[in-house]
Amino acid sequence: MKAVYLAETPYSLERVAQIIAGEQSTGTFTAVPGETDALKERHAARVEAIEALEEADAPSLPGSKLPQGHDGKYRRGYITVSFPLHNFGPSIPNLMSAVAGNLYELQELSGLRLVDLELPASFAGRYPGPKFGIEGTRKLAGVYGRPVLGTIVKPSIGLSPEELGKLVYDLALAGMDFIKDDELNANPPYFPLELKVKTVMEAVERAADVTGRKLMYAFNITGDIDELKANHDLVVRSGGTCVMVSILSVGLAGLAYLNSFSEVPIHGHRNQWGMLTRAPLLGFEFTAYQKLCRLAGADQLHVNGLNSKFYESNESVLRSIKACTTPLLGSYEAMPVVSSAQWAGTAPATYEATGSVDVMHLAGGGMLAHPDGPTAGFESMKLGWEAAVQGIPLSEYALSHPILQRAIDKYGKG
Amino acid sequence: MKAVYLAETPYSLERVAQIIAGEQSTGTFTAVPGETDALKERHAARVEAIEALEEADAPSLPGSKLPQGHDGKYRRGYITVSFPLHNFGPSIPNLMSAVAGNLYELQELSGLRLVDLELPASFAGRYPGPKFGIEGTRKLAGVYGRPVLGTIVKPSIGLSPEELGKLVYDLALAGMDFIKDDELNANPPYFPLELKVKTVMEAVERAADVTGRKLMYAFNITGDIDELKANHDLVVRSGGTCVMVSILSVGLAGLAYLNSFSEVPIHGHRNQWGMLTRAPLLGFEFTAYQKLCRLAGADQLHVNGLNSKFYESNESVLRSIKACTTPLLGSYEAMPVVSSAQWAGTAPATYEATGSVDVMHLAGGGMLAHPDGPTAGFESMKLGWEAAVQGIPLSEYALSHPILQRAIDKYGKG
Repeated sequence: MKAVYLAETPYSLERVAQIIAGEQSTGTFTAVPGETDALKERHAARVEAIEALEEADAPSLPGSKLPQGHDGKYRRGYITVSFPLHNFGPSIPNLMSAVAGNLYELQELSGLRLVDLELPASFAGRYPGPKFGIEGTRKLAGVYGRPVLGTIVKPSIGLSPEELGKLVYDLALAGMDFIKDDELNANPPYFPLELKVKTVMEAVERAADVTGRKLMYAFNITGDIDELKANHDLVVRSGGTCVMVSILSVGLAGLAYLNSFSEVPIHGHRNQWGMLTRAPLLGFEFTAYQKLCRLAGADQLHVNGLNSKFYESNESVLRSIKACTTPLLGSYEAMPVVSSAQWAGTAPATYEATGSVDVMHLAGGGMLAHPDGPTAGFESMKLGWEAAVQGIPLSEYALSHPILQRAIDKYGKG
Repeated sequence: MKAVYLAETPYSLERVAQIIAGEQSTGTFTAVPGETDALKERHAARVEAIEALEEADAPSLPGSKLPQGHDGKYRRGYITVSFPLHNFGPSIPNLMSAVAGNLYELQELSGLRLVDLELPASFAGRYPGPKFGIEGTRKLAGVYGRPVLGTIVKPSIGLSPEELGKLVYDLALAGMDFIKDDELNANPPYFPLELKVKTVMEAVERAADVTGRKLMYAFNITGDIDELKANHDLVVRSGGTCVMVSILSVGLAGLAYLNSFSEVPIHGHRNQWGMLTRAPLLGFEFTAYQKLCRLAGADQLHVNGLNSKFYESNESVLRSIKACTTPLLGSYEAMPVVSSAQWAGTAPATYEATGSVDVMHLAGGGMLAHPDGPTAGFESMKLGWEAAVQGIPLSEYALSHPILQRAIDKYGKG
């Protein structure tokens, strides 16, 4: 299996490539008895490729040591290392110790980012991956030919059972395909999950009696490992069709565990992810991380959104969307979840980039705070996508669709 | 419960403090119906304190947006925010979504680091924490009055059963208190855990028949959630006295799960941690993270070592050691594990800093590659600590202890 790193070093790229390969397989900081040539032949990681990039005048991260006679330059480049799979087997937890491990702390590096992982087929034998993916999500939500459109319960926290029940009922009548809990709201003592599931599912069923369509509600079941099964079973037993977890809260291992018994799609939220990715020469690129999320079973996976309230560039968001929809080991399809500061106006650019309506497009304030209310907010999102798919500029389409115009008036100033 | 952040922003600290509190409780990027004053009163996070630090001329992280009329300065400071516990309850996974969540991605911030967590007593009711800690580790290893001294199997990967059995036996006869698997070596296909446990425990028992003392071997049982119980039970059934996990591989939730049934101390390895901490204005400070590791049940916890091969400063290592040995909610004692490029020569400074011998001091190459072999290597570590505790300079103590002198000759050049 291969890992690709973006590295920065005051040494030569060749030197640190060897250090990376040694540190993560048979080597240590001083020669030890037993590291024979035969052992290295079978177990050493190997440097497969080095691609030099630009040089920098200052280190990206603190704590690197300098070689004697350092010329003041910090060399950057891509380093590809291959690892013998029999060193750790098709195990996500042990893969992480091998490809990340202590590398980020090495003094010979002033920057390191894991940018890609090439996983062998044996991972597919071990991890079944998403059971629902795009098609399964569409089938359960009853939405075809356009994005699954939805929203997030806001305020994130604090609604009473009466308020939440009314909100969900109203949103369902407004035509919503999908609603999710906020990542801040899982099983809070002031409003336990059991009561939430009961409250929400009553509203969903009552609305379905009117609309003939049952919306998908992603219940945030994030919790400790011994709570995941009970929380999941509670949702399924109550007729729910989706569970959500904060992937970094339960861990990739927790996600894979949930996937071992889940009976409905898993909505994978990536809060806390910024911690691992915002420094350009540290951490993890989402294009690599999303592979592990999909292996571990995320049917729906957050990727931020265009022009979001977050630091991430649109280019990076588009790379993430593309990565999630690129087959992994022949399959492992997950539906990208586009969210954060979204509204009808972000539909055209999203569609232009993806060339597909196989996305879940969520708007919080950008839909619920529409001047004419959530019904109009939802309608404005649909109109945004209609315009996008038909190739009509939004402002033109808005001429004959005042609800869209009012969305533009409110959200389009930024 | 309170969280303390080190923040950097092109806005005022007051402004971003409010944004942080809002984003992680009742707010979103635009006002929504339902965020009433009564709801905010009960559920909003509150800014408790702001302490301004220096200003910077450039942003630490990319992607921040600038306020109109920006003066070119990036303000840094500590921001303390309190969260109503009834928003998420005493749950580590949901605590993380609340205190970290999407904050790292906000455009209003050009840097954010979680530097401390003040956890309420209800966390103690939910998480029992380490069952063994310092005293339990000492009792099982049979070591009192000095550090638990040990080593790591090297080469990390690739030894045959015969080679590993012989190495462990020899190291046990050499007097070793403790041996751990490398984090790279858990349950590899070429040498499965079941065979490893059998091989190692036979060697440990045979050696104990000679020495009268059974060393503690930390078996790396890192794996998927459904493997942890079986792996743990295999170790305990075979007479093993310690299990090890890579905390970031199994997640804090996975660690707490293991702790729910573990019958031997848990050796908590922190590989991958650099990813979360090496950028000074991103991620997590270990002094905060270690609290969660202890709550989740780590009996022994890695903290790097002085003058290690890693980027971390000695000051930071000492802060980590101190943090791990500071009572948490009245208890939750974990034994700090000092390792990485350690040898006899790092004992005096470690002791000077800790003022205690309640540490686990591990050396790999710095002990096993001693010119006179592992027996001498172990003896040199003991001599280093004897000198330290007696306040005798190492070079002086070495005059009458040639084994120590030969360690100094080999490792003391750096």
